[in-house]
Amino acid sequence: MKAILIGFGNVGRTIARILSVERQRFPGLQDLDLKVVGIFTRTRGSIVDDGGLDLACALDAIEQHGRFLPEMKGYCGMSAKEAAEVLDYDVLVELSTLSIDTGGEPALSHIKTALQRSKHAVSANKGPVAFAYHELKKIADEKGVKFLFESAVMDGAPVFNMARNCLKGCQVEEIDGILNSTTNYILTRMEEGISLEEAVREAQKMGFAEADPSNDIDGWDAAAKICVLANAIMDAEINPKEVKRKGIRDITCEYIKVVRQKKKCLKLICSAKKVGTQVITTVEPVEVDEGHFFASVKGEGAVIRLKTDLMGPIIVTQEAPDLYDTAYGVIDDLLTIHRKTI
Amino acid sequence: MKAILIGFGNVGRTIARILSVERQRFPGLQDLDLKVVGIFTRTRGSIVDDGGLDLACALDAIEQHGRFLPEMKGYCGMSAKEAAEVLDYDVLVELSTLSIDTGGEPALSHIKTALQRSKHAVSANKGPVAFAYHELKKIADEKGVKFLFESAVMDGAPVFNMARNCLKGCQVEEIDGILNSTTNYILTRMEEGISLEEAVREAQKMGFAEADPSNDIDGWDAAAKICVLANAIMDAEINPKEVKRKGIRDITCEYIKVVRQKKKCLKLICSAKKVGTQVITTVEPVEVDEGHFFASVKGEGAVIRLKTDLMGPIIVTQEAPDLYDTAYGVIDDLLTIHRKTI
Repeated sequence: MKAILIGFGNVGRTIARILSVERQRFPGLQDLDLKVVGIFTRTRGSIVDDGGLDLACALDAIEQHGRFLPEMKGYCGMSAKEAAEVLDYDVLVELSTLSIDTGGEPALSHIKTALQRSKHAVSANKGPVAFAYHELKKIADEKGVKFLFESAVMDGAPVFNMARNCLKGCQVEEIDGILNSTTNYILTRMEEGISLEEAVREAQKMGFAEADPSNDIDGWDAAAKICVLANAIMDAEINPKEVKRKGIRDITCEYIKVVRQKKKCLKLICSAKKVGTQVITTVEPVEVDEGHFFASVKGEGAVIRLKTDLMGPIIVTQEAPDLYDTAYGVIDDLLTIHRKTI
Repeated sequence: MKAILIGFGNVGRTIARILSVERQRFPGLQDLDLKVVGIFTRTRGSIVDDGGLDLACALDAIEQHGRFLPEMKGYCGMSAKEAAEVLDYDVLVELSTLSIDTGGEPALSHIKTALQRSKHAVSANKGPVAFAYHELKKIADEKGVKFLFESAVMDGAPVFNMARNCLKGCQVEEIDGILNSTTNYILTRMEEGISLEEAVREAQKMGFAEADPSNDIDGWDAAAKICVLANAIMDAEINPKEVKRKGIRDITCEYIKVVRQKKKCLKLICSAKKVGTQVITTVEPVEVDEGHFFASVKGEGAVIRLKTDLMGPIIVTQEAPDLYDTAYGVIDDLLTIHRKTI
């Protein structure tokens, strides 16, 4: 199976590492016969090799020089857009980051192009799913290919795969949870007496908050995630701009103290609920009882609860997600396509 | 698809109810084309109809008379063993209860017979999986049929299905959790000041503890469950009698008080861990920190944590399981067979 990767940041490089230098450690991946034939980045150059790139080499280049070098085998000036349109591949893997302003572009177009060419698409970027799930799924179905995005919510912790395979006789009626790790880390640190600004800086240093933290602290990332869930699992048609959204920007340590005195924890809760034929989505800080499942999710953890007509509620918690978990979400999708198990 | 049910207690009747009188409520089951052609019980009689039994009628008989009546259409004296051997069916559904003394019999033999006849088998009874997983799986594989048992651990909450479909690139290295609802209920009530004996009586009244509570309070049910997990997910070969097992029979309210004063909760924890080529399994009461995920599981709740080589840990929690959850585990297996999605 031939894949092209769009984006080669932390997640892309972790995938490359798992599939190359660390591969021996993971016997469960033995049958994954995957050739990466192109890697496309916005600022670090791009490389192409129809016979399969040497991923260890690609990793080396980024680690040593911060980019692909013109003297590397396969170095090229091709854009991701062009690659999606003209290259010979079986699956396009979108690893770029969420852009709310552009409505999920350019990732959305890359995926659409791939699907229209009857290629599978895997997206770690939640934007295309949040803004255009039904459009993309329809093309995928028409062309008989897969459009998968397990890592868009809670990394590789099974959410979409679980709904598809393990709750196949149920209708999901309500979803809630803590889906943004960065704000959960910030709120946990604020409980320990640190200011929001300091906690943001810590999260940036630790690599899971971006330079501009507004996607996290204004609730945009959480809003995109609840849209992905509502669209893909509850058949809603909603985009992040339509979510009732309140972030944590204005939360103070004093407020957190008051909440703690009530034996509660402040959590940024995402929810989607079927009300008649509508799905109502919300992102907002909520005071949660100390003994509640959601309160036990500290730091960068995340949790989701699914309520269905027949079964549940089922709660899936991620204790301490790292880059391997995000990478695994993509790899699980690749395995699903490879084993044609859906 | 033709099924025979062995056992028609609470779970069997809930399945029958979901598939008949309540079916309209569950649109996700629309495509499940299932004909129950036989129901066999030890003490309530048996009924057979190759054209498909009227499940609503069967439910009525039990509700009104406590048993099937000789004047009912299809009433017969056939034993479950004979039915497994001679009837024409596609899937045998084992709904009898765990028997440690007999090493999972007679359910084990019923399932073996079905598999040897190239029929699928679904077991809500954990005994056959705890005592003979590899033997039964081997026959199923040789005959090209399925042997599924989702509800054997944590009812319909996805465990085996999740490992099979959502963690397919991972090797599970460690499992721990609270798997016996009855003891968790008892320990929760003891924290509230009630004695073990009283709590057992409450659980019996509420219908989730059996008349002889020793399977629960001596840790046998938990031991069987950790065996099922170790055998089916971690490739161990162990039976419940080999588990290092300590129940809660000797736990006193005084001891629970001391634990609570330390800001801890006492939980009956099951665990299985790979150590070299071995899998070490344990069931024992453990003092868990108040803020821990496991501590937030109160009453009849249950929780499992999977650690793998690549992904996780992932924690799946059941908030308040009821008979619909157990029934759903069986129905999900039937859907898996019906849709041939494995």
